[in-house]
Amino acid sequence: MPTPIGVGTEELRRANLRAILQTVHTHGPTTRAVLTKQLGLNRSTIGALTGELQSLGLVTEQTPVVGGRGRPSNLVVPSTDNVVVAVDVGVDRIAVAEVGLGGEVLARRTRGHQRGKHDVAHVVDSVAQMVEDILTSSAHSRCLGVGVAVPGAVRADDGLVRFAPNLGWVDEPFTELLAKRLSLPVSTGNDANLGVLAEHIRGAAVGFSEVAYLSSSVGIGGGFLVGGRPLTGASGYAGEVGHMQVDTEGPVCRCGAVGCWEMKVGENVLLQHAGRLSGGGPPAVAEVIASARAGDARAAAAVEEVAEWCGVGIRAIVNLFNPDVVVLGGCLAQVWRAAEQQVDEAMHRSALVYQRADTVIRSAGLGDDSPLIGAAELAFEPVIDHPQTVPQAG
Amino acid sequence: MPTPIGVGTEELRRANLRAILQTVHTHGPTTRAVLTKQLGLNRSTIGALTGELQSLGLVTEQTPVVGGRGRPSNLVVPSTDNVVVAVDVGVDRIAVAEVGLGGEVLARRTRGHQRGKHDVAHVVDSVAQMVEDILTSSAHSRCLGVGVAVPGAVRADDGLVRFAPNLGWVDEPFTELLAKRLSLPVSTGNDANLGVLAEHIRGAAVGFSEVAYLSSSVGIGGGFLVGGRPLTGASGYAGEVGHMQVDTEGPVCRCGAVGCWEMKVGENVLLQHAGRLSGGGPPAVAEVIASARAGDARAAAAVEEVAEWCGVGIRAIVNLFNPDVVVLGGCLAQVWRAAEQQVDEAMHRSALVYQRADTVIRSAGLGDDSPLIGAAELAFEPVIDHPQTVPQAG
Repeated sequence: MPTPIGVGTEELRRANLRAILQTVHTHGPTTRAVLTKQLGLNRSTIGALTGELQSLGLVTEQTPVVGGRGRPSNLVVPSTDNVVVAVDVGVDRIAVAEVGLGGEVLARRTRGHQRGKHDVAHVVDSVAQMVEDILTSSAHSRCLGVGVAVPGAVRADDGLVRFAPNLGWVDEPFTELLAKRLSLPVSTGNDANLGVLAEHIRGAAVGFSEVAYLSSSVGIGGGFLVGGRPLTGASGYAGEVGHMQVDTEGPVCRCGAVGCWEMKVGENVLLQHAGRLSGGGPPAVAEVIASARAGDARAAAAVEEVAEWCGVGIRAIVNLFNPDVVVLGGCLAQVWRAAEQQVDEAMHRSALVYQRADTVIRSAGLGDDSPLIGAAELAFEPVIDHPQTVPQAG
Repeated sequence: MPTPIGVGTEELRRANLRAILQTVHTHGPTTRAVLTKQLGLNRSTIGALTGELQSLGLVTEQTPVVGGRGRPSNLVVPSTDNVVVAVDVGVDRIAVAEVGLGGEVLARRTRGHQRGKHDVAHVVDSVAQMVEDILTSSAHSRCLGVGVAVPGAVRADDGLVRFAPNLGWVDEPFTELLAKRLSLPVSTGNDANLGVLAEHIRGAAVGFSEVAYLSSSVGIGGGFLVGGRPLTGASGYAGEVGHMQVDTEGPVCRCGAVGCWEMKVGENVLLQHAGRLSGGGPPAVAEVIASARAGDARAAAAVEEVAEWCGVGIRAIVNLFNPDVVVLGGCLAQVWRAAEQQVDEAMHRSALVYQRADTVIRSAGLGDDSPLIGAAELAFEPVIDHPQTVPQAG
């Protein structure tokens, strides 16, 4: 256990401000009465705290219109004057969204880019233009920051992108460059870690505290919640599920090892098995699945082969994490929806998993947007954690 | 995130009592001055809190003998009148220890038993006799409870042993039976989960909050700390590392799947590869390692083979958890100490792990006692969490 620390009243106040702001950000407009009940505090304390959040410009209070007995309870509403910009740097496109406090997507932009190695300065430039464009067209009064999802390992303390093989990046100071260029706070996270966060707050994992989010495109990203908190590991690199060795018979992975899980279940593996060209992305995967349904034997065999390996990998994850729910994204979700029974059979080949049948498997509730929405949550985090430090409106 | 809950003053008081008791239990006698500083509370608050712990019989205060300038600060000492009994039900022996508040092992007993299927009533009987025997010979005044480590999956809420293949148990109400027999509170946990707890508090993982503890005998147990807290999973079954599929070429595991990790690195695998009989346990493993050193080619090949698979499995764990430290116990520790270079080579075959070379690998600091000491910590937990509910001395 970490050395225990005593709790004083100032931290108490901040914890309560945080709790109220988190509640209205996550669940939307909430009456003072409900907040009073949920937080176990008295009415006057809640009034003082919501008053402080109001003077910080983070919430507004509305008198409910509906009549009734007794004094009506004011509605505490997150103020969408406060926005963040969320960015998802994917392998084949950059997506940008303006998201208001409370989680509403107010505007979005998408720009395709080619797969392969990307010059970091060029990506910073593209992202910055898209962010500036979306903020210029926006009616918000205060941008709190920018959150970015990248398909790679990100160092926790400074956002250095240590290793993003599908962008061709090693030790790129992407976060620092973008923050300088935009003069805004920028936080960067691993796409799967942000995906699980988003699915937990607004997607298929709401209400669960033990969550595994597995999403594949070229590689596989894994993001985990443990006790309701993100699994980061010692340096922010946890959740690298793609390089578990599952097959001694190969093939050799670009990481140098043999038979890694992502060599058995990625998009391109499915496409190759089906006799298609690599690189077609989700639409090409959808075509193979449709062809398999229509009677294309080679496509069907490809789906079955990949479904088998999906089950083998998910079984390892279920045995390690004993999650409430496994949320699948990308190609894993496509294959699972197409061949649930084969995935299931491979998972349950081990008696151990059979005894743990309580784990639910689902497709991502936010579809391909999980990392993007998670990036918005990442950008909101410092303000929710420390509401009193929010910059003046402008 | 879980729905945030407001914090009131009563919880604050309990948290501070808990913090003081945890500190003196973990670190031993501590001056009031140090507690004041560590907890960030004022002297009179600390005085009131230690006074309450003293009246509960959990600590004593001693005036330090050494002179000096200013008023000397009282030493707060955990009272070893409070004991728990720790039990480790292993595959080939039952170990029982009387442990005082503060962590000192005051007495211990060990009784061998045969490997294979065990009748639960018989094990309850043996354990109860050993517990009664150790308490009868003891000078303690208050037994707070019994903690038990078992090599299997334990249901968190009632201690039902769901699945302990090496004892031949499925859904055995071991905890309930032992508590009834002893008329004492009994808590049961998975041996590896308790092992990681003990290594964190008093062993090789002190000061680290991201810890993987991997220990093998017949099977492999995995226990993890994530953010300083035990990884339990949704139902308490997390950490099952033995059934990751690592080798498509087999062999078939008793769980029904093929090529599980524990089929590649357990004690018996090593013994078989070396041409020895199965079932000899740690001494037989030590003999193979000594023979390998002495030039026995078959023994050397067996060690090398198992070391390779150790590395493959540890690599998966490092990629998934990005731990500060991997603590090895049992046969894994023996093989790693004998063939560190081979284990390392297999681990670093993947470029991903190579970039994460900050992970430290160590043998268990408590040797084979990690689960036993962890069981003691498990028994102390309810009292440390709720000091005010401690039963009257007697």
